[in-house]
Amino acid sequence: SLAHRCHHRAMDMLDVPFLPFCAFLGTLGLLCVAMVGTWCQHWRGGFSLDGSSRTFNWHPVLMVTGLVVLYGAAALVYRIPNTWSGPKLPWKVLHGSLALGAFVLTVLGLAAVFSFHNSQGTPNMYSLHSWMGLATVLLFSCQWVAGFGAFLLPWAPAWLRALYKPIHVFFGSTILMLAMASCVSGINEKLFFSLKNGTMAYKLLPAEAVFANTLGLLILIFGVLVVGALARPSWKRPDSNSPDSHQ
Amino acid sequence: SLAHRCHHRAMDMLDVPFLPFCAFLGTLGLLCVAMVGTWCQHWRGGFSLDGSSRTFNWHPVLMVTGLVVLYGAAALVYRIPNTWSGPKLPWKVLHGSLALGAFVLTVLGLAAVFSFHNSQGTPNMYSLHSWMGLATVLLFSCQWVAGFGAFLLPWAPAWLRALYKPIHVFFGSTILMLAMASCVSGINEKLFFSLKNGTMAYKLLPAEAVFANTLGLLILIFGVLVVGALARPSWKRPDSNSPDSHQ
Repeated sequence: SLAHRCHHRAMDMLDVPFLPFCAFLGTLGLLCVAMVGTWCQHWRGGFSLDGSSRTFNWHPVLMVTGLVVLYGAAALVYRIPNTWSGPKLPWKVLHGSLALGAFVLTVLGLAAVFSFHNSQGTPNMYSLHSWMGLATVLLFSCQWVAGFGAFLLPWAPAWLRALYKPIHVFFGSTILMLAMASCVSGINEKLFFSLKNGTMAYKLLPAEAVFANTLGLLILIFGVLVVGALARPSWKRPDSNSPDSHQ
Repeated sequence: SLAHRCHHRAMDMLDVPFLPFCAFLGTLGLLCVAMVGTWCQHWRGGFSLDGSSRTFNWHPVLMVTGLVVLYGAAALVYRIPNTWSGPKLPWKVLHGSLALGAFVLTVLGLAAVFSFHNSQGTPNMYSLHSWMGLATVLLFSCQWVAGFGAFLLPWAPAWLRALYKPIHVFFGSTILMLAMASCVSGINEKLFFSLKNGTMAYKLLPAEAVFANTLGLLILIFGVLVVGALARPSWKRPDSNSPDSHQ
């Protein structure tokens, strides 16, 4: 019918190719990492391991790099068309390794903020940012361990893999959404803490505030694009509802 | 094959029925509205229209009620199986009306915070929370106008509806994700503003902080469940890739 032909032509117009999209996303991710590093280096005094605010500065850098950008790269591995045929094991190892790298950076990022709080005598885990951030990291650790046990170790039966796969996929996007919310609440909070005095107050919107607000928006755009790419039906493996065979 | 039978049996175990899920989600949404109202009434001095912090208190209540809970209800209308057959127009009107109600509450919520800032001499639109919140509301207004123009007015051709539908669906989930991030950053920021003095400082985690942090986590759970329900393949209209006929 005419309606059907029109529909297919319209859909073709929206059919963004995956690899150029990934190149754009990679650029955006690197920009986020560069901007969070620049913010901490240029305006917040740089990096050290002495328990001062220069130790805290590792926290935003490691969280944006690990829990957002590297995590996003790990999540998108199975959207690469090459992964849809041939042996699955190398792609599983890549997915698990990227996620493990993201997790290690995340744990180091937590260590940075706990170390800063402890050396300053500040209580840990009181703000909504810290509650949601820790919940995100705990979910991420369960996700990694369960994914490793179900998909990489050889003992899991096919029914268990089939049962767990949609749960793993759901929490994959959920953890990234929580990470986005944690990042922006953390940037917002840090700017209120840091920009207090008369000429530099956050409310006067100095250059640092414009820069870090922009970073927050770019992190949101990155996360929304990854979650959207994961949900896009035409980028999923065509047989993604078939049982997952043993390796 | 055995693997296929196992796969189907495993999938059946995950097949949550939609209506009990909605009842749970509705309860969770009402709980969020009740909690944000209780927070502002019990700990933040209640409500008024005099430009004081009691005017500000309308802001979180209207945003959580409009941009999260009512928005979530509007987004899920097409997941009700009754909408999949028979005339579409009544469901479109319901979807558009719920979204319009959500939008009106959202604009009133913006008016509350601008009126508070203006009467206190505080600048508007400097924090990351305000940037991302306003971006969310602007996207929501574009989404409503474009959805009304494309799907409710009779002039849009089938190819335009087919082209715009996946965009409308993508931004539907995106706006809710941004709303979640805006809410938690706003609650976090408000607690830092409000809980400053010695015995009530946020870092000492008084009852108000536990209550409002819990509210933030419940808003995140509500939003994650709505976005997850929207993405769930088995809850989508079976013919959702077919062209959208004129009404």
